[in-house]
Parts: sequence; C-alpha cells; structure tokens
Amino acid sequence: MGNPSLRDIAVFSGSAHPELAAEICTHLGVPLLPVQFERFANDCLQVQLQANCRERDVYIIQPLVKPVQEHLVELLLMLDAARGASAARISVVMPHYAYARSDKKDAPRISIGGRLVADLMVTAGADRVLAMTLHSPQVHGFFSVPVDHLHALHELARHFRQYDLSNATVVSPDLGNAKEAAHFARLLGARVASGTKQRYADDRVEITSVIGDIAGRDVIVLDDEIARGSTVLELLDRLRELKPRTIRVACTHGLFADKAIDRIGSQEDVLEIVCTNTVPVAVEERSEKLKILSIAPAMAEAMRRIHNGESVSSLFEPI
Amino acid sequence: MGNPSLRDIAVFSGSAHPELAAEICTHLGVPLLPVQFERFANDCLQVQLQANCRERDVYIIQPLVKPVQEHLVELLLMLDAARGASAARISVVMPHYAYARSDKKDAPRISIGGRLVADLMVTAGADRVLAMTLHSPQVHGFFSVPVDHLHALHELARHFRQYDLSNATVVSPDLGNAKEAAHFARLLGARVASGTKQRYADDRVEITSVIGDIAGRDVIVLDDEIARGSTVLELLDRLRELKPRTIRVACTHGLFADKAIDRIGSQEDVLEIVCTNTVPVAVEERSEKLKILSIAPAMAEAMRRIHNGESVSSLFEPI
Amino acid sequence: MGNPSLRDIAVFSGSAHPELAAEICTHLGVPLLPVQFERFANDCLQVQLQANCRERDVYIIQPLVKPVQEHLVELLLMLDAARGASAARISVVMPHYAYARSDKKDAPRISIGGRLVADLMVTAGADRVLAMTLHSPQVHGFFSVPVDHLHALHELARHFRQYDLSNATVVSPDLGNAKEAAHFARLLGARVASGTKQRYADDRVEITSVIGDIAGRDVIVLDDEIARGSTVLELLDRLRELKPRTIRVACTHGLFADKAIDRIGSQEDVLEIVCTNTVPVAVEERSEKLKILSIAPAMAEAMRRIHNGESVSSLFEPI
Amino acid sequence: MGNPSLRDIAVFSGSAHPELAAEICTHLGVPLLPVQFERFANDCLQVQLQANCRERDVYIIQPLVKPVQEHLVELLLMLDAARGASAARISVVMPHYAYARSDKKDAPRISIGGRLVADLMVTAGADRVLAMTLHSPQVHGFFSVPVDHLHALHELARHFRQYDLSNATVVSPDLGNAKEAAHFARLLGARVASGTKQRYADDRVEITSVIGDIAGRDVIVLDDEIARGSTVLELLDRLRELKPRTIRVACTHGLFADKAIDRIGSQEDVLEIVCTNTVPVAVEERSEKLKILSIAPAMAEAMRRIHNGESVSSLFEPI
Amino acid sequence: MGNPSLRDIAVFSGSAHPELAAEICTHLGVPLLPVQFERFANDCLQVQLQANCRERDVYIIQPLVKPVQEHLVELLLMLDAARGASAARISVVMPHYAYARSDKKDAPRISIGGRLVADLMVTAGADRVLAMTLHSPQVHGFFSVPVDHLHALHELARHFRQYDLSNATVVSPDLGNAKEAAHFARLLGARVASGTKQRYADDRVEITSVIGDIAGRDVIVLDDEIARGSTVLELLDRLRELKPRTIRVACTHGLFADKAIDRIGSQEDVLEIVCTNTVPVAVEERSEKLKILSIAPAMAEAMRRIHNGESVSSLFEPI
Amino acid sequence: MGNPSLRDIAVFSGSAHPELAAEICTHLGVPLLPVQFERFANDCLQVQLQANCRERDVYIIQPLVKPVQEHLVELLLMLDAARGASAARISVVMPHYAYARSDKKDAPRISIGGRLVADLMVTAGADRVLAMTLHSPQVHGFFSVPVDHLHALHELARHFRQYDLSNATVVSPDLGNAKEAAHFARLLGARVASGTKQRYADDRVEITSVIGDIAGRDVIVLDDEIARGSTVLELLDRLRELKPRTIRVACTHGLFADKAIDRIGSQEDVLEIVCTNTVPVAVEERSEKLKILSIAPAMAEAMRRIHNGESVSSLFEPI
Repeated sequence: MGNPSLRDIAVFSGSAHPELAAEICTHLGVPLLPVQFERFANDCLQVQLQANCRERDVYIIQPLVKPVQEHLVELLLMLDAARGASAARISVVMPHYAYARSDKKDAPRISIGGRLVADLMVTAGADRVLAMTLHSPQVHGFFSVPVDHLHALHELARHFRQYDLSNATVVSPDLGNAKEAAHFARLLGARVASGTKQRYADDRVEITSVIGDIAGRDVIVLDDEIARGSTVLELLDRLRELKPRTIRVACTHGLFADKAIDRIGSQEDVLEIVCTNTVPVAVEERSEKLKILSIAPAMAEAMRRIHNGESVSSLFEPI
Repeated sequence: MGNPSLRDIAVFSGSAHPELAAEICTHLGVPLLPVQFERFANDCLQVQLQANCRERDVYIIQPLVKPVQEHLVELLLMLDAARGASAARISVVMPHYAYARSDKKDAPRISIGGRLVADLMVTAGADRVLAMTLHSPQVHGFFSVPVDHLHALHELARHFRQYDLSNATVVSPDLGNAKEAAHFARLLGARVASGTKQRYADDRVEITSVIGDIAGRDVIVLDDEIARGSTVLELLDRLRELKPRTIRVACTHGLFADKAIDRIGSQEDVLEIVCTNTVPVAVEERSEKLKILSIAPAMAEAMRRIHNGESVSSLFEPI
Repeated sequence: MGNPSLRDIAVFSGSAHPELAAEICTHLGVPLLPVQFERFANDCLQVQLQANCRERDVYIIQPLVKPVQEHLVELLLMLDAARGASAARISVVMPHYAYARSDKKDAPRISIGGRLVADLMVTAGADRVLAMTLHSPQVHGFFSVPVDHLHALHELARHFRQYDLSNATVVSPDLGNAKEAAHFARLLGARVASGTKQRYADDRVEITSVIGDIAGRDVIVLDDEIARGSTVLELLDRLRELKPRTIRVACTHGLFADKAIDRIGSQEDVLEIVCTNTVPVAVEERSEKLKILSIAPAMAEAMRRIHNGESVSSLFEPI
Repeated sequence: MGNPSLRDIAVFSGSAHPELAAEICTHLGVPLLPVQFERFANDCLQVQLQANCRERDVYIIQPLVKPVQEHLVELLLMLDAARGASAARISVVMPHYAYARSDKKDAPRISIGGRLVADLMVTAGADRVLAMTLHSPQVHGFFSVPVDHLHALHELARHFRQYDLSNATVVSPDLGNAKEAAHFARLLGARVASGTKQRYADDRVEITSVIGDIAGRDVIVLDDEIARGSTVLELLDRLRELKPRTIRVACTHGLFADKAIDRIGSQEDVLEIVCTNTVPVAVEERSEKLKILSIAPAMAEAMRRIHNGESVSSLFEPI
Repeated sequence: MGNPSLRDIAVFSGSAHPELAAEICTHLGVPLLPVQFERFANDCLQVQLQANCRERDVYIIQPLVKPVQEHLVELLLMLDAARGASAARISVVMPHYAYARSDKKDAPRISIGGRLVADLMVTAGADRVLAMTLHSPQVHGFFSVPVDHLHALHELARHFRQYDLSNATVVSPDLGNAKEAAHFARLLGARVASGTKQRYADDRVEITSVIGDIAGRDVIVLDDEIARGSTVLELLDRLRELKPRTIRVACTHGLFADKAIDRIGSQEDVLEIVCTNTVPVAVEERSEKLKILSIAPAMAEAMRRIHNGESVSSLFEPI
Repeated sequence: MGNPSLRDIAVFSGSAHPELAAEICTHLGVPLLPVQFERFANDCLQVQLQANCRERDVYIIQPLVKPVQEHLVELLLMLDAARGASAARISVVMPHYAYARSDKKDAPRISIGGRLVADLMVTAGADRVLAMTLHSPQVHGFFSVPVDHLHALHELARHFRQYDLSNATVVSPDLGNAKEAAHFARLLGARVASGTKQRYADDRVEITSVIGDIAGRDVIVLDDEIARGSTVLELLDRLRELKPRTIRVACTHGLFADKAIDRIGSQEDVLEIVCTNTVPVAVEERSEKLKILSIAPAMAEAMRRIHNGESVSSLFEPI
C-alpha cells in the first residue's frame, strides 16, 4: 500500500460572488473548481461540486449578500455536499456576513440571527470560517468553530497613500466604530475624529455632532459598511458645517442599497467613494466616483496560511 | 406560590400560506397569533412572534413552497425565536416539504437536501414535525425528532363520493405511487390501475404503458403532487388510446409550475383537476376545472390530538 | 395510579451570595432549600442539594463573583447534581456574570470566556438562565439555552425619585453605555449626557470629554458596573470642570475592587454611591455614602413568571 | 522530535465474514490484523483489536448478517475499541446492511431500524461507511457520516459475458428494482423486462405479470437480494408461461433463508444461480447450480481509494 | 381547546423477563401494555409498541440477560419506537445490567462496554434508567442521564428474618463486596465476615482466607451476583475448615451459568440458595434448595415515586 | 501551492506545575512555549497561548492540584484558546486528576464530579487525555475521548532496586489497592501483603489488620496517593505490632495535605517517604526523608509515542 496523499486544496464558489472567487484562485495559483447549480420545478436548489473533494482541504467562497436567503441555503447545501464527499476539512470563506447585524435580542421573541446562522453552518458541515470585518467583534463568539477574522484596513490604506495625507483626518460616523478609525488613522499617519449618534434626548430624534478637528482638513469618512447611506449623508451635513477642505468616503462592505452610490456620489463635495469587493456591485450601479479595491490578495494569503498551518494573526493583527 | 399554568397552545404562521393557517385555527377554535416580518436593508429577515410563548405548546405553520429558500430561513428564524422565548414544545406544521424530493444521492458530491433541511430544523429548535404525504416514506427517517405523517386520501375520497363510482378506476401514473392509489381505490370501492414509466431500453426515451382496465371506465388519475404536469399529460395520451369513459385528475400537493393547470385543464376530456390546499394556489392561476379541497380540518384535528396527547395514528392509519 | 404531581419550585443557593438568595425566597414565599458544601483534602468540592429535586422546577442562585473560579465550579457541580436528581427544569439565576466581559477575541489565541462558560453551564445541565445587565447585549447570543435578561433601572429610578429631579442629568461614562443612560433619564424625566473615551490619538492616552449640559445640574453618573472605579474617577475630574451642582454615582454591579468605594466615596463632592445587591459587598467595605438597593423583588417576580409561564418581557421591556 | 508518521492502514474483521475480509486484505496487499473475541459467563461480548490502531486509518469489515444482533453489537464494540485506541479514522466496511430494509414507518410505534442502527454506529465511533447495494437509495440519507455506496453489477456482468448474450433479456422481479436491471442490461448489451407486483386488488393476493419480451429469450433474473426466494419463484411461474429459451438467476446479496437455494435450484429450467460473497453462504448449503462471485477486489479497490483520497464515484458511478 | 391531558404512565416489557414485568404492573395497578415482536427473514428484529405512547410517561422493562445481544438490540428498538411515538419521557427499567462488568480497560484496545452500552441507550432515546445493584458503583457515572440505583437488601433481609439470627454471620466472598455485606448484617443484627481473594503471590494462584468469626455460626454468604459459582464454591471450602453451624447462600442477581445451581445446591451443607428475580431462572433449572424472592414490589414502588416525582433516595438510601 | 506542513508538536503548561512541564519538554527536546496568565479586576482569568497553534499537535500540561478550581478553569480556558486557534489535536496531559475521587454517588443529589469534569474538558476542546494512576480504573470510562492511562511503578521500582530486596515485602494499605501492590512486588521480586480496612462491625469504627508476612521483613508501604496520611499512619501502628525490620513508604501522588510529610516523617522507624512529581511539593514542606522521583521521562516518552502514532500500551502495560 502506498501512503495516503497529502491534503490538497480544493476551492469552490457559490453563486454569490464568482468574480471574487476567481480572483482569489488566481492569487492562490489554483483552479476555481466547477460547480453545477440547479433549481427544480418545486424551487428547491441542488448544487453539485464537480471535482473530487475526498481528503481535500476544501474552501467554499460565499459572501452572504442579496439575495441572502438563496445564498445561505446554497452555501449550506455545498457544505453538506463537501462533507458527504469526504472532505478532510471544510472552510467557509465569507467576506461578508449579513446576519452579523442580528447580534442581540433588542425585542422580545426574535431570533439572534447571527448566532442561529452560525449554528446552521456548523450543522451543515463547516469546520471553520474565514470572515472579514464582522459587524461587532462579539459575533466571533457566536461560532462554535474556529474563526479567522480579517479586516481590510491595509487595502484601504494602500489606496489613500497615493494622496498627500499631511493634512488628513479619518472620521468615524459614530463612536462604536471609532477604534477601527483610530487604527486606520495610525496606518495613514493621520488624525482621527468621530461623529456621535446621540439618541438620548428622545428615541426618535437623532442628532450627530463631530468630535475632533475638521476645519480645513482632508477628511476620509470610514465606516465598516454602507447600506442605505443615511448615516453617512447625515454625517456629511455636520461635516460641512465644520468646513473641511476635501471629503472622501470609505468602507469595507459596499452594500449600497436604495441607490446609495448615487445619493452619496451626487454630493458635489464628495470626491471619491472607496469600498472593497467583499460584496459584488452591479455594473450598472458603478459610477465614476466609486473605487472598488480588491481584498482577493488578502483573502488568498489568509487561505494559503490556513492551508499551510501558518499563523494568520501575525498578518492581520487585531485592531 | 401558585401552581404552574398548564401548557396552552400557541399557533403562529409564517408567510408561506397564511390562509391555510387561519383556517386551521378556526377549526381549532384558537386565534392565529400575530407575527411581524421585517426585511433589513441588507436583505436579512427578522421575525417577531408577537404573543407570549413561555411554556406554551407552540405550532408554527409553514409549508416549504415557492420561494422555498425564503420560507425555509423564515421558518428557521421562527423556530429559534420560539425556543429563545421558552416555548415548552415547538412543532413544525409543514403541509408540504419540497426538499423531500432530494432524498438520495444519485450523483456524486450533492447534498441529500431532505436530510440536511431536517437537521437544520432540529438545530433551529424543532421538537417535532407534522407533515403530509412526503414524497417517499423513507424521508420520515431523515428526521431525528418525532414526525406525524398524514395523508389526504380521506379528503379526496369525500369529494369523489359525490359521483357515481360504480364504474371507477383509480390510476397511478407510476408503480411507485401505486400503493397509495390502491388504498384510495379501496376507500372508493373502485378498481385500480397504474401507468409504468419504463426507462429501461434507453435512458432518454420514456414510454408509459398502463396496467389494468381502462376501457369504458371513469378514470381518476391520482398522484402525490403535480408540478409541471408532464407525467400526467403523458399518461393522458396513453389513457386515451385505451378509451376511458371520463377522466378526472387528483393530487395532494398542487404545485402547478409552468402553467400546469392550464396545460392539463385545456385537455378537453379532463373533467376536473382536484388538489388540496397544502400549497397555496394564486388566484390568477385558478380555473373553472380546478377544485381545491381543504386539509385544514384534518391538520387541526391532528394538532388537537398532538396537543392533548391522543393517538394520531388511530386517525390516519398508514397506507 | 394517581396523577403525577404538578411541578413544584425548588430554590437553592450556592455560596456566592446566600443573603440575596434568602431575600429572593422571602419574596417568593418559598423556603431556601438547604445545601451542604464540602471541600476534600485534595481541594475538590462536593455539593449536596438537601431536598428532593425530582420533577421540580429547580432554581440555583449564584452570581459569578469573586472568587469566580470557586463559584463557577460550585455552580457546575450543583447543576449536575440537580440533573442527576431528576429535576424537571434547571434555571441558573445569575445576577452577575463576570465572564461576560470576555466577549471578544482582541488578542490571538485567547478564549472568548463568555462563550466558553456559557457552554460549560449547558454541559453541566442548565436549561435556562436568568441574568441581569450583561456587559454587552451580544453576550445573550453566547448561550444555546433561553436567557431572560433583566435590568435594574426601575430599582435605581425608584431610589432617585426621592430627590428633586427637576434639574437632573444622567451621565454615562462612555457612549457604549449611553443607551442605558438615556433609558434611565427617561424614567426619571431627566436629561442625559455622556462622557466619551477617546483612545484614538494614541493607544495609551485616554482623554474623556463630556457631551451634554452639566453646568449647574444635579448629576447622576450611571454605569453598568464599577470595579476599580478608575473610569468614574476620571469622569469626575471632567465633570468638575463643567461645574455641576451635585454629583451622585450609580451602577448595577458594585464589584468595588481595590478599595473603589473608599476612593470614590472620599471625593467630597460625591454625595452618594448607589448600587444594587447583585454582588455581595463585604460589611467592612460599606461606608456611609454607599446605598445598596435590592434587586431581590425583581428577581423573585421574574422567577415567579418563569415558573408560571407568564411573560417576562412584558415586565422588563428591552432598553 | 521527528515528524509524525503518516497514517497507515489497519484492517480488522468481525466474526461475520472473515473469509471475505481475508480476501480483501490479499487484494490490498496488507495483513488482516488479529482480533480476539471473548464471551463472558453473563453472555457479554468482549473484542480486543490485537494490533496498534494509534493514528491509523482503521477499517472494520463486518456485514450485518445472521445472527444480526450478535454481529451488530460486536461491530459496535470494535468501533468503540478502535476509537479508544486513538484511531485516526474508522471506516465500517459493511458489504450487507440487513437493517436497511427497516427504512420506513409502515406501522405506528415501530422504530425505523435503518436510521437507528446508523446512529448507533456513529455513537460507537464510525467516521464513515462503505456499503454495497443498500435496499433503497434513501437509506444513504440515514447516515450522518459519509457513505460510499458501491454496487456489484460489474462483477455480475463480467460473469455473464462468458455466455452468448445476443439473445439475452434481464428481468427485474418488480419495477422498484428495474432501474438497476436496465443499467445491468446496458452493461451486457441486452434487453430489459420487468415483473410487476400488483397488490392493488386486495392486500393479500399478489399477481405478477411481466412487461417486455421473454419468448425465446435467454433470461437473466436480477434482484438486489434473495432471502426466502418467494418472489423469484413466483416470477419463474410467470416467465415459463411466456416461453423463454433459458433462465438464470442473479442477485447481489445471497441471504438464502429457509433453504432458498434448494427451492430455486430444484427448478429444472433454472440453469444457474449467481450471487456475490457479500453474505457468507454455509458450505453445506452450496449446490452445483450456485455460483458465488467475489466482490473482494471491488471492495479492496474502494478501500484503497478511500485511504489514498482518490475519487470512488469515478469508479462506481451511480446507477 | 381543552387542556392537555396529564401525563399517564405506560409500561411495556421486552422479551427478556415478561413475568417480572407482569408482576411489577400488578403492584403498580396498571396494565402491562402489549408489544409485538417480529423477526424478519434476514434476522432483523422489529418491535411494535401496541398502545398509545403520546405524551405518556413510558417505562420499558428489560434486564440485559442472556441472550444479551438480542435483548439489547430489542431494547434499543423499543426506546426508539417510544421516542418516535412522542413519549413524554422514557425510562429504562433494567433490573440487571450485564455490561456493567465491562467497567475498565484492563487490556489495550478493548471497549469499556458498560460506558458504550449506556451511550447507545441514550442515543436510542432513554431519558433515565432504573437499575439494581450495578456491579460497581462507578458504573453510575457511565450514564449521561439520571440513574436511580436500587438494591435488594431489604428483600433479602425480610426473607432471612424468618430464621433465628442471634448467631448469624454474613460473609462476603471478597472485600470488594464487604460494604454491602456489612450493611446487610446491620439490617439483620448479625455479624459480618469476609473472604479475601489474594492473587498477590502469583497471578494464577488464588487462595481465599476468611476474616471474622465463623466457627459455630449460622453463615449467610452474600454476593451481588452468582454466575458460574466458582467463587462461592471456593469460599465454601474455606468456610468448612472453620466449622460453621449452618450455611446459606444469597445473592441479588442469580445468573446461574454452567449448572451453577446444581453445583452449589449439591453441596450437602448448603441449606438454601436465595436470589431475587432480577434475572429469570428457567423452570427446569430450579431446585428445592433455590428460593427466588421478588423485587417487583420494590421496583414498582420506585417507578411509582419516579412517576409521581417523589424522592426515591429516601426509600433506598445508598449503602 | 506548496503542500501543507506536517503536524508539529506544541507544548504549553498551565500554572499548576511549570517545573514538571519544563522537565518534560527537556526530555522531548522541544521548547516549552510561552503562556501569559492574567487576572482581571473582576477575578476572571485570561490565558493567552503565545505561540502559533494552527494545525499543531498541542499538549497542555496541567495536573488538577490545589487550588483545584483555579487550575481547572485555567485549563478549560487554555483548551478553548487552542481550539479557537485551530490546533489540529489537543491533548490534556494531566499527571494528577483530583476529581477522580468523586467517582460514585454515595449520597443523594451530589454530582459525580469525575464524570462532570471529564465532560467539561471535552466541551472546552480536549481531544484526548494522558493521565497517571487514576483513583479507580473505572474513571477511564468517564471520558468520551481516548485516554492513555500510565502508572509510575517502573519509576518507583527503579528507586527501590538500589536496596537489598531479598527480604522485602510490599504492603498495600487496603485490598482495593492490592492489585497494584502485587504488580509492584513482582517488579521487585518481593513478597506482597495487605492491610484490610474493616468497617463492617460498625460504620464509625475502623480496624486495620494485615494479611501476609511482616515479621523481620523490609516493608515498603505502597499507596496510589497520600493526602492527609491518616490511613498510612494507622497502618504503621498495625505493622509495628508485627515487628518488621525496616519501613519505607511510597506513593505516586504526594498530595501531602495538613503537614502529612511531617506527621509520617516524624515516625522514627520510617526510613524514607518516596513519591513522584505528579503533584508539586512546596519547597518549605520538603524534608530529608522525602524522596521525589520524576515521572517526566515517562510522560515525555508517552507524549512522543502519541505524537508519532506508536503504541503506548506496549510501554505501560495495564497492571
């Protein structure tokens, strides 16, 4: 008898973001393996992994983005298929985890969806998760399997270093995200400021003020994600009162619902909207002001290290 | 200290088939409790059960019908919410289980979806399941929690007894479903016949012949479900060659994809299409020839017995 | 054969805070059942529940307070003993959960202790948890069993209503806790303000500014817990610069490590330190300025409702 | 420190079918490792695996054949022993799974034994299963661990190719097994026919008719298993009425209860009974007409591929 | 809607010891519910519980006695059937647990059968266990569900109180069982003595000496079980050297393998062999000297208390 | 892509016995990797493993010794940290398991702590356990993961072989430990004797007699552990009556509570107290008569074999 083959890597993509998956595989130097998606007359999905998984180190790339429910069930079917096909280890590569926002029980008799969906993935066969910029750091604790939690600040910083940053201020829309903004400011050698969402006087009224120097500065607004963009737009109103020199907007997850790109981009003083490709942006929604940075090299490097048993934390130190 | 309250029943409905749920509750004599459905900007769902679940005997009514993935995730969120709200027992009332058709691994590296989804429901909090006419009886064994498995033959029989059945023959489209057809024939005092799908000469060619007396008979075609209707249409071609007197078509689950009602109903010699309301049929798809029977009384009676600890099998004996 | 007895309540206390347990039982009108604690020569603990648990609705009262490890293992032994003694249901009544502060992985290769300890309790037999003011709301999602999450704002409000509140401002030491402060202010008909911890310029430097009106106001500083008191002391420095009329300090969990009561109480302008009895305060540490409010009536009422299957959320609406 | 040794294979056999196990090992080129079986005075079994299992890739060969309960418990004890001995992975090699026939709940208050026994094996330590021709394909879904599901059609085909097949027809006793028969016919370049079990007129009466050309053909009756042989004997009566030229009988699992070999073999027009060695046939029951084919080479090749992480499905494509 | 029915008791018996089950039911005043046992042609078992289990408090009486494997699998099938039939709670009533003797790993690569079988019962659906005189008290810890552990000393004592005990000595065959013998002696107001198995000089030689007063005493030899009887016979040799006045032999579990009753009973100076009916004794093996006491009243009383939620430990205090 | 790295070993120590851990690592020829222990103001522990664990074969050395609760929780946090850091396999190296003494339920409503703590370790992430001389062999069965169970008799024997053993007798304080003593005597070519604890006449009175030749012999008292030393002191009283020539005392686990070393060592006729370093002995408690043998070489060799997949049982055959 020969010796067992060493564990090879096998990378598959769900239908949520195949472009990102292809790019990751290019960086890894491995093929993106074929998958066949079918939908039956009764609307059930079937997914076939079309390459040998046996004793392989399998990675399934699927951000949980719109349509979230379709992509979630598809992911669960792929996990179960890989397990049934005797994968040695199955990692979910999930650049965006939409259900991370359901992280607390702020009304009676609701599900904490971020915990439930984490449990569903484990039930379906996930051995580990590679995630990026989860909405709150506690969501890490919702998973009963190991999680590698990356962030995209290095990618964002690399982009902004093309500009003169001697006069730059990073602004977080609220204090909750300020730690990340401070970390980003350090990377850029910039100052930091923060909006403060103050709901305290009344539940329905929300006023934002800004702490930190803005006047005459080159402002970079940084948030973890932009969905409808209302928070950013409101922050821009406050910033303008403080007379910044320039304004740029940056985020990791560019969800851009309800024409958010248009609504932010149409602000004349916003020079640029920068996001990463954790979430696919439809071609027809892209605009001149939108700059999409790729996190594929970082994801690929993390996958390489996970596969080879090298430290990931040494690369992406916690913020 | 007073004694703990006795377990009360609490019935909620997902968004898949609220009409059926309302009808079941009318038969039970209990209110259908309110539920609030929300969809966030990032396409995540949130479901709030809006009545006390604590120590209640909770029933969640949700057939897994189109859009299946939305209804499945919604169901899982409701189960988790009920569990987190301290329900004493949580029963899934699932008149149609679409994933039951994914019951075997007939290609490499696919999921057996019927097993996976059963495990997901248990992970989310299901204590038991009330199902109707699962695609194959083995699917029962995919669940690690108790299943009560009903059928709708009594409802269908009650309908057909309005006709003169002295000359009737029940026809199953294939032998796989013939046991159910034979049971139905016994209920009607009718004869039974069966089509046979014969794929044996060649994988792609499918010829159907019919075993049993058809000539001059009043034929009732019976299947467990009709989706696209192709099988039934093909069977009708064969039946006509055998000169039946009349033709009626019946099934439990009327999925009716791709204008199946039209395609079957437009056959002039088909007098009637009979189904039950396990699956909602859109108003605009209904036709004169379509007769929808209600399984709400049967589901309600089963729920009443489950709640009261009475035998369900004595009511719905296995076929 | 007679019918089975209805589930009776059975309340035990670990050694962490027997006074609170006794007070809760008085409010419930049930006896605090006896427990025998033993420590063997090899330092192992043994706990004997000295009353019948069979088919009882068992409550074990144990805040996880110093010495935390001793009280945790003692709790786990009690849970396992109750399970082995055939308890019908076992609820952990945990007025303070110290490990809730370990809620994220902010360094590589550490445990998220809040999740681990939640899993340990479930392994040992906990069916549900009654907690109070967890450090972050996401910690709720660390538990795989139902959690009822109370807060003590009504108790604190009742205390402060003895004063003239027409000029009062509730101050949260940081924005993270501001939502709770705003809720508290609404209960009192007071205004709200907040300190902001700003670590953004540099990791080691921490400056606190205060947002909101302080000058000439009657200030109530509110935090979820006070351990060493450093944050409060620093906030007091900032507040003084803003010339408040009076200062009072309030919190739910009075951990008071490192002579925190003395260090805060010795500030002449601090008129009062108010906490609840979720955590025992040693008699020798108590001072004139310290006022300890009892959460026993609230805990007892929640336990009564849990036992009787009544809604708890209707009593303690989420903040 | 040296590197860990690569995972070696270790093959053990229960007492159900040691000849098959020995033959498999010969094909694998590895020794069949010794096992000691003991039965205590109180009728309990003890099984000792007498070779190092630590970090080995362990295979335990045990068809569940008569006496089924003894062989099942023996298998469970071996699985647990291997797990306790730190096996890296434990595969059950189960050429026949008797409990697969208990695959549905066709009476109230019975166990679905096929699911239960699958769960017992996982509880005892099974990491995966290698099975052959399970009674129904849904049984695959009863296992929560990966299953490789082989069939023996290639072995049977190889045997029949010694004959002139230009005039051959493969006959399935019933439509349920017809798919397998069609696949087999394709392998042989033969035609296919099928008996139809028709229980519909009355539960107790069973009439078999035959669909397809039989007259003057060389018939090969194919079934998945033959136990008492009643179905085959009844089919033979029908076939004779249709005047075939020759008759041969073939199956995968030759259970042969109640002198089935004699009863079939004594039919003068049956030229041959062909089965495989998934089930041991006692020497005294063997007859001149019985031909037993070995599936050992196929099982060995599948085990080699499982051990080496090569695709098994590419070898044994689903029927 | 009416209220749910209160949990009723439902008692079934496996085929191991129906006489005991019937006797227990008489004492409980409830019917022994019917069960149908079937064995298929392939040697698989099927067990049907023939009375409603839904929401019932189900008890399955099955000592694990010879043939142990048959009775074990039968028990597992019954447990799974009761669970699938929605029993509210399932208790295994197991007067004898043969696998309790497999309680340690005294050779490499064996299973600790007592732990494995405990896990199998829980997998199959056991919620709790009622056992009697387990071989070692640690076996209790092998179960992950509550165990009520009875002993039969009161029954044995009641029997012996018919004799003059003023001169009696209870003798344990070895020190391991001496604690139980001492307890028994206290119940009788007798003295206690013990044999000592001394294997220390050499593994194969075993000499038994007796500690305590024997000369002229009325000796009652007490052991937990008698299988082949070798230990007792050897002890009798030693006792005779010490000139007791009379000799009686008693045990809880009368396994009596290899004609043990004959071999002990044929000793002329043995006046009586006393055991209980935890294990069935074949009629043809019974002898004049054998006295079988019933533990049915004790088992029934324990079941009544378990069902009613009354303390069992207060009845059968630990020895 | 390169191949995955082979699994390397990574050894960490808790704070219970770092000297032993360092010594083991010296024998293994690997570094003891750094760990940072922190205690927060609220008395919670945090442990950071300060070296990469990813895909490593991780060993955590922690005897459960005084303060047991602190060391247990610390161990659980380390296990969880290693799991979250993607360790390939996590072994607990536990030279002393204090909770093994809680191995039975000898009072109602207590926990069987030995089972509970075993379950807690598995919940926290333990894949396997390396233990030494567990209090009773049944404790092995409390673990649901593989256990390698070593003993220290070879180390003790090596020590005593420096003396003339021609006249030696090994004495076990009670029959329960006699098997181990007999094994030890064989290793030394010595005779064996045993004390007998006789509690039979009365629960409170305990008389020890000694079986075997003592007069004029060189006695070695052997026990598995010495805590308060009362048993040994009582045995010494009995032994003196029998006039041995010399007395030495030996044990594996030297817990030495309540000045046990002093109390035994102050006996003039006790020439030597010998234990191993499974438990740390404080420097100030050590005395001239105390000799501590190292089990580090044995533990290291077992760890080397576990890591390399070699047989451990062949080294440490069961006693």
